[in-house]
Formats: sequence, structure tokens, C-alpha cells
Amino acid sequence: MTTRASTDATTARAVESSLLDELADDVAAVEAALSDVAAAPAGYVRELVDHVRGFGGKRLRPALVLLAGRAVDPARVTAIHARLGAVVELIHTATLVHDDILDGALLRRRRPTLHRMEGTEVAVLLGDFLLASAYAEAASLSDRMAARYLAEITRQVCQGEVLQVHERGDLDLPEATYLEIIEKKTAVLYAASCRVGGYYAGGTEAQVQALDRYGREIGMAFQIVDDVLDLVGDEAEVGKSLGTDLARQKMTLPLLHFFRTGPSAEVARVREALRAGRGAESAPWIRTAVHEAGSVEFARGRAEDYVASATRHLDALPESPARRTLANVAGYVLQRRR
Amino acid sequence: MTTRASTDATTARAVESSLLDELADDVAAVEAALSDVAAAPAGYVRELVDHVRGFGGKRLRPALVLLAGRAVDPARVTAIHARLGAVVELIHTATLVHDDILDGALLRRRRPTLHRMEGTEVAVLLGDFLLASAYAEAASLSDRMAARYLAEITRQVCQGEVLQVHERGDLDLPEATYLEIIEKKTAVLYAASCRVGGYYAGGTEAQVQALDRYGREIGMAFQIVDDVLDLVGDEAEVGKSLGTDLARQKMTLPLLHFFRTGPSAEVARVREALRAGRGAESAPWIRTAVHEAGSVEFARGRAEDYVASATRHLDALPESPARRTLANVAGYVLQRRR
Repeated sequence: MTTRASTDATTARAVESSLLDELADDVAAVEAALSDVAAAPAGYVRELVDHVRGFGGKRLRPALVLLAGRAVDPARVTAIHARLGAVVELIHTATLVHDDILDGALLRRRRPTLHRMEGTEVAVLLGDFLLASAYAEAASLSDRMAARYLAEITRQVCQGEVLQVHERGDLDLPEATYLEIIEKKTAVLYAASCRVGGYYAGGTEAQVQALDRYGREIGMAFQIVDDVLDLVGDEAEVGKSLGTDLARQKMTLPLLHFFRTGPSAEVARVREALRAGRGAESAPWIRTAVHEAGSVEFARGRAEDYVASATRHLDALPESPARRTLANVAGYVLQRRR
Repeated sequence: MTTRASTDATTARAVESSLLDELADDVAAVEAALSDVAAAPAGYVRELVDHVRGFGGKRLRPALVLLAGRAVDPARVTAIHARLGAVVELIHTATLVHDDILDGALLRRRRPTLHRMEGTEVAVLLGDFLLASAYAEAASLSDRMAARYLAEITRQVCQGEVLQVHERGDLDLPEATYLEIIEKKTAVLYAASCRVGGYYAGGTEAQVQALDRYGREIGMAFQIVDDVLDLVGDEAEVGKSLGTDLARQKMTLPLLHFFRTGPSAEVARVREALRAGRGAESAPWIRTAVHEAGSVEFARGRAEDYVASATRHLDALPESPARRTLANVAGYVLQRRR
């Protein structure tokens, strides 16, 4: 069992490392654009921006902007793509900074979260600053599509998150509502990254649509894997506070499946612990119960289905190195351990 | 003394009521646009939006968008002005919702603040939703000026607020830093309201510049009056939690003047109370001390100076009913009691 797990971990690291190599040039271009887009005068605000820049980690979303553009037409991928990548990354980082307040999380990418370091007030304001920086940059493009679309997407992200907060504690959350929540709070930004990348490279409506669907489905898979990691991941490896979903009575796919199919005595025990607000300290045995009922495997299976479907959408694009890398990103979403 | 105060209150109400009559049509147009710009599907988010719509109160900022436009050219004030008014009001409302979290305020326009009613998480997210709604609308205009400018302005607002949080507790705050903070956190949005109003009515660069300066200076006056009201206002009349600046060791103009010019024994006593975190319970006697040292009068005098200067900038515009109303707005900023 340990050998199997450590082999998996080794494979996952190899996949990640090879993917990161493929993305390295794109990520470097985005990093340069980020410095520019979120520029602040020297001083406290700039220090805060520098601190949170590391939160985004692998820069998957901005890399998708560039990859989607190249999958359509490499000749039309310009500095605009790197800048749009920075815009998407800043919107994402703003939601992370604000999410950490919501979740009371202490660690993000092995760094202290901003609200822990500087307090809730500064975390709220810095998130707003990052959002405004993203919109200011998007609005500077002569084609208004990105500015309109990304602001509209952020409206959906917020609605998804509000819904999640509102439904928290509802142990009987319908699976359809869970899927609606993760689509809005996570998948739409993946979809938008791919859409703007393809659009600004001059993609046809069919290509842009296919890229949107590819992004949406890997976004769904990404969030399901995230929820699985929060339940059964290794905190040292993942690099952020885990078990927060149980602590905050946030229903996720493995748990919903367990409630529907698990042994009734076990289910009753878990529900009682969650209702009593004992989710955090009960995490170890809840994890085992959900695992043994096959619910973690079920959730991973659903993530695999999304990835398989996402990959099929890539058929709408010509065969190219960028398309192959998009397929690798889809595969990586499943393998990732952090 | 009581008679004087109640005469003042009566005059202030008369000024407010006559100004609100002048603004009524503009405000109605903005209200209609607001419903559209911040539209959300039926349900929880829409209920939240409806609740916070009342926070803005008198809709001074959006009224300035329309007035500035008409002061330039009434024939060129269109539905775009009402929509831009809604955009500005939503940015303002978002900052109020987020500010209330920062201040721990309980009341806003006699309604419970959102974070008190629904929790910090929902308040953070709803503010983000309002900001995104504002940007989505601004980005829909074919002329990109508003989208770029208003996003840039929001970056400044956030920087001003971060600076304020960062400097809190510094009893030796230089007056210049206080002025920088209130310019960024408050005055720039007044300036921007006037600027976009004039610009979208086809104003010349000189007219747009004059409107920007007018807006900036009434914004400075507005914030100084706000700070005075927080110190010596009547909570029932103002309709929101007061005394929060003392409680949170936030330096404002009357207090800074008092520290510089008040009787040294009194100054030492106030500083000690603030340092010891006893600002809230000491508010009644601090208020008296600051009043008696003439520091409230000093701050009101500075606000009058800003208003006088603001009014002079209006000379760059042709004489018109809208210009007269802009002058009335400037006068009202000084007289307001809430």
C-alpha cells in the first residue's frame, strides 16, 4: 500500500515536472506581465503584492491562455496573450486572498495567508486592489471582449461562492447544486482562460467554443480533485491547510456519494459529527470511512470522466504541439497531488 | 446653544431637501440603471443586492455624473450617463460593504450592515460581485475611457484604504499623510464621477479637468465632514455607527489639530486613552476636549476652504442650471448632518 502510494507520488511528480518544463516559457512571459499589471508604488502595498504573487503556484490558468492561443494560430500569439494571462492570474489570486479569509486558512503554498499575516482588513483591500488591477489592464485592450467577458465571469465566480457559503451545513445538498457551485466558482475561469486565448488568436467561433468547453471540463475535474485532496491529501505535500471542508461543513462530491451509498451506521456517525461541529477533530476517521466506502474512488472517477470529455473537445483544433500540451494539462489535473 | 444647534439642523434639512428635489430626476434614472447593472438571478444574491442598494443614500456621486454632463452639454447627456452613474454608485457601495467589515460597523443608513446580518464571508463576496458588475457595465461602452479610468481609480481607493489601515495607531501621523489617505480613499471617486460625466458629454480637456478638480475638492470636504461627524455627530441623525475612528485609533483632522494645538495636559490624557485602546469608552470626554480646543471648528474651516476652491473651478463651465446645482452640491457637503 505504501509502495503503491509512493510510486503514484513519483509518477505524479514526473508528470508535473515534465509539464512544467513545457510551460516554462509561457509562465516566464506571464510573470513579466504580472509585475507590470499589478504594479504599485514602492512601499507597503507593493510588499503585499509580492507576497501574494506566489499564491498562484503553477500558473495553470495563464498558461492556458497562451496554449489556447497557440493551438489556434501560433503566429497570432502576442504580448497581449501574456498580459491577458496576467489578468486571469490576478483575478484568481484575488479570489484566493479573499477565500483564505472565508476559510480561515493559515497556509497557502507554504506561505502564511495574507489575512493571518496582516489581518482581515488588509486581505479584503488587497484582493480588491488585485481585481481592479486586472480590470484596468483588460480595459486597456482595444478589443473589449476580454474586459466584458472576464468581468462577467467574475460575477459568476462570486455567485458560485456566495451559493457555497449559503448552502454550507446542508448535509442533504443535491449533487446538481454541488456541480453548479464548482462550475461557477472554479470551472468558468478555466473556460474563460481558454476562450480569451483562442479568441485573441483569431479563432473561429467553433474553435473558441471547443476551447471554452475543454477549459470548463478540466476546471470541473480540477475542483473535484481539490475537494478530494482536502479530504484525503497530505498537508505537507499539498502545502496548504487541509480538512477545511469538513471543519466548515462544506459538502463535496466524495462526502455526498458516501451519504448516498455508505453503510448506514457509518453515515449516521459522520453526519452526527458534522452537525455537532466536530468535523475538524473527526477528520481522520471520517477520511477512513469515506475511503473504505469507495467514495474517494467514485469522485476520482467523475474527475476522469470530465478530463476524458475535455480532451475530446480538442479534436476541433488542428494537431499541434500546443494541442498536445493542452492534452497533457488535462492529464495532469488528475495526477496532481498538490 | 440648543436653539442654535436646532436652527442649524433645520437649515441643513432645508438645504438637503431642496437639493434632493433638484436631483430627483437624475437619481430616478440612476436607480433604474442600477437594477439592470447589478442584476442577479432570483434568489439569495438578488436579496443581498436589494439590501445593500439602500446603503448609498443620497446618490451624490452618480448625480454628479449627470450634472457634470449637463454642465458641459445637456444635449449630449444620454442613457450612458445614467449607466455610468450606476457604475460609480456600485463601486462606492462595494467599498461601503467592505469598509463595514473593516470597521466592524453595525449600522449603515439605519440598516444592519451586511457582515453583521450575513457574516464576513458573504460581505466580502458580495462586494466583489458589485465591483465585477460595475466593471462589466463600464466595459460594455464602446469608448473605453470609463472602464480604464474607473478601474484605475479603484486601485487608488484600495491603496488609500490600505494606507489608512497601515497607519492606524500612529498618533503622530503627518497631516500630509492624512490628506493623501482621504484623497485616495474618497476624493478620487468624486473626481472620477465628474470627469466621466463631462467627458462622455464631449467636454473639452479644460472643462473635464475643471470638473475633476471640482469633484476632488468637494470629495476632500466630504471626507473631512465625515470625520467630524464621526467624532461629534448624533448617531440617531447620522444613521450609522459613530465613534469608530476613536475606537480604531484612526487619526482624523480634528484630532491631529488638537494634538498639535490643544492644552498639553488634555492632549496627554487623550493620547494615553487612545494608546490604551480606551478610545470607544472615552469618546464623550475626548469629544468635549477636542471641541473646546477649537479643533472641530478648524476642521470645518478646512472643509470650507476646499468647497470654496471647488466652486471656483466651476467658472470654467458656461453658466447653466446644472452648474448652479453643482454649486449647491458643494454647499450641501458642508451643511450635511448625515
